[in-house]
Amino acid sequence: MLTFSAIEAARRRLAGAIPVTPCARSEHLSRVTGTQAYLKLENLQFTGAFKERGALNKIIQLTDEEKKRGVICASAGNHAQGVAYHAARLGVLSVIVMPVFTPLIKVTSTRNFGAEVILHGDSFEESHQHALKLAAERGMVFVHPFNDDDVMAGQGTIGLELLEQNPYLQAVLVPIGGGGLISGIAVALKETNPRVKIIGVETEAFPSMKASIAAGHIVKTPPSSTVAEGIAVREPGDKTFEVVKKYVDDIVTVSEEEIANAILFLLEREKTVAEGAGAAGVAALLNAKVDLKDQKVCAVVCGGNIDVNVISRIIERGLIKDGRRVRLTARLMDQPGSLARLLTIIAQLRANVLEVQHTRVYDAGKLGVAEVDLDLETRGHDHVTEILGAISAAGFETELKRLDRNGKIKKP
Amino acid sequence: MLTFSAIEAARRRLAGAIPVTPCARSEHLSRVTGTQAYLKLENLQFTGAFKERGALNKIIQLTDEEKKRGVICASAGNHAQGVAYHAARLGVLSVIVMPVFTPLIKVTSTRNFGAEVILHGDSFEESHQHALKLAAERGMVFVHPFNDDDVMAGQGTIGLELLEQNPYLQAVLVPIGGGGLISGIAVALKETNPRVKIIGVETEAFPSMKASIAAGHIVKTPPSSTVAEGIAVREPGDKTFEVVKKYVDDIVTVSEEEIANAILFLLEREKTVAEGAGAAGVAALLNAKVDLKDQKVCAVVCGGNIDVNVISRIIERGLIKDGRRVRLTARLMDQPGSLARLLTIIAQLRANVLEVQHTRVYDAGKLGVAEVDLDLETRGHDHVTEILGAISAAGFETELKRLDRNGKIKKP
Repeated sequence: MLTFSAIEAARRRLAGAIPVTPCARSEHLSRVTGTQAYLKLENLQFTGAFKERGALNKIIQLTDEEKKRGVICASAGNHAQGVAYHAARLGVLSVIVMPVFTPLIKVTSTRNFGAEVILHGDSFEESHQHALKLAAERGMVFVHPFNDDDVMAGQGTIGLELLEQNPYLQAVLVPIGGGGLISGIAVALKETNPRVKIIGVETEAFPSMKASIAAGHIVKTPPSSTVAEGIAVREPGDKTFEVVKKYVDDIVTVSEEEIANAILFLLEREKTVAEGAGAAGVAALLNAKVDLKDQKVCAVVCGGNIDVNVISRIIERGLIKDGRRVRLTARLMDQPGSLARLLTIIAQLRANVLEVQHTRVYDAGKLGVAEVDLDLETRGHDHVTEILGAISAAGFETELKRLDRNGKIKKP
Repeated sequence: MLTFSAIEAARRRLAGAIPVTPCARSEHLSRVTGTQAYLKLENLQFTGAFKERGALNKIIQLTDEEKKRGVICASAGNHAQGVAYHAARLGVLSVIVMPVFTPLIKVTSTRNFGAEVILHGDSFEESHQHALKLAAERGMVFVHPFNDDDVMAGQGTIGLELLEQNPYLQAVLVPIGGGGLISGIAVALKETNPRVKIIGVETEAFPSMKASIAAGHIVKTPPSSTVAEGIAVREPGDKTFEVVKKYVDDIVTVSEEEIANAILFLLEREKTVAEGAGAAGVAALLNAKVDLKDQKVCAVVCGGNIDVNVISRIIERGLIKDGRRVRLTARLMDQPGSLARLLTIIAQLRANVLEVQHTRVYDAGKLGVAEVDLDLETRGHDHVTEILGAISAAGFETELKRLDRNGKIKKP
């Protein structure tokens, strides 16, 4: 099992190559949650995630012979970049196997770090098997994303930094995918101070570690999808499972909506960019999944590699929820001047029109009626109410489109 | 004129109330610009900007009598929040005058900090005059956003931090609005080490300090608009003008597009949220406005208060530029099956359809022709070329909508 001294040794190997990331006090998060909240900003690593630590600790220990043959892994995400970057830095050949559907931008950025990228398999499982096969064929060292003592020890260096940066820490919230990150941090903290609570956070979509701990053995959860791709792991490793069973105090889950809200909170309030997995700990804190009132707590923001498309969608959802963006349908007589009259009312109330779609209704009961879909920039819920009131008062029928629990637009 | 010892005194007053923000080495920016680049992250202040420093240094020095009567200022931005927050912390009444068109969210957030907000005036100029009038009437202390030695001394504490965090620094890039920030930093650095280059950065839309220095006296530039609201100042102060004239080595300007690109660079690469003014220094560095090759340089990211709506728009623009989002028009026969055939081609090339608008063309020469506007998520310029080729090969006429120099969509 992973030991404290393995983590101390990793710390010495990483020194100078991996920066000590900030563990910054967050006033906003503290106020909102009633805790003394800190954020460990692993999204500020060069490749945007903590994965470099484990990858480097593994690669740097290879024999000269192994280094000559190179390393291989399967990953379309942060592990790929961590391996590719540090292998290249150390002059070691690296091969990364990714599923064929991997977005081009991830392929390109991993290639730019100096890796050979092989697209193979329709699922991560298939890529993983192919990488193992290639490792055997080519005699390359396989770098597992989490179920490896050297990898776990590398991630554990975060725990040592936390102890130095924040010696009075009482609890830490750590996202769980395969369990490598939390294993390293748990050993570092618990072997120093058993009173520090270690809380794992999984997405509801992939509760594999929680289910495994509950069952007392490793459980594989069904396929799913999540905004927190970095922790979309269906089955923990046997090494990480044993460490988590021994050291972790509690595992909680967060919903997709809670993760999206946490991403937006970090962006708007903390001015920091987190990916879904990176925001999971903050989501657990914001939604009080564990009682940590008045305690000194740290959420590990483990990565910041989020597609800007996804950021855009999360922002839009957030605006709709806050009444700062609204979609409504108005019904009007299909005759000259109706639309102009409607738009004048909206203009007078200073809402900004983003989109207008005017369609005639093909419905026998509503002959001569047209429907207008409006997409408006508004100032908040009160402003929306005011606009709806004014439109109704002018004799137009209106209907607001609301968000359902999953953040999709629905009719009320 | 502002002195070094005034800045040292400010440092003592601010200790414990204003955190020392990170001055983090940026690997990405260093690689792209061929410099050793650092970022001073003032966007991580509680209110999201450096303005707290000057505001606090001013308010904390008031007499008990003055504190009882309170402080007043005119600002719809970061200065307002800095004054409101620290006045409330110290139990001092604060009044903030904002133009009537100020977005509700800024009014609300300033009120939440404990200030009385008065909406008055159609321009910032009018709000400013009204605040001066109220200050006289109510006997309140007016807190100028930049032209005040105590305010400038507060901002200068950033310079002292830079010297401690990075003693071998060779150049610093500082955004200029009214000139308070650069005045403080310039005195702190130049009075310690005259070899450190101080470079001011203005938006092309408001080059008032550059024009004033060139003219040898204060010049007022015409009204304009910019994404960098925080440095949209038409006229520098007489105090800041004198300091800049004496200490600042160079002033450069950056375009709106360069600022937008810098915001996106900071978001995607540095995982940090900067407002337009906050990204101006990085924009100057990215576009090599001054030759700083191989030097140790620091860009002051002075604030991070950017509307998420604006972030969304900048992301969208960036995606279009990178070929990751594309709008095109295809012409097809207005008959059953045409649209389905077109969409099948696009689906086979794995582009994601975001929006489709199908319209019949009312043009005598093109009877029986329909136009389809498509909004697609693509994987890059090569992918776009491939899609256009396939659509043409299938006999559809297509037209790509490109971005013009100002980032607006235009036909080629």
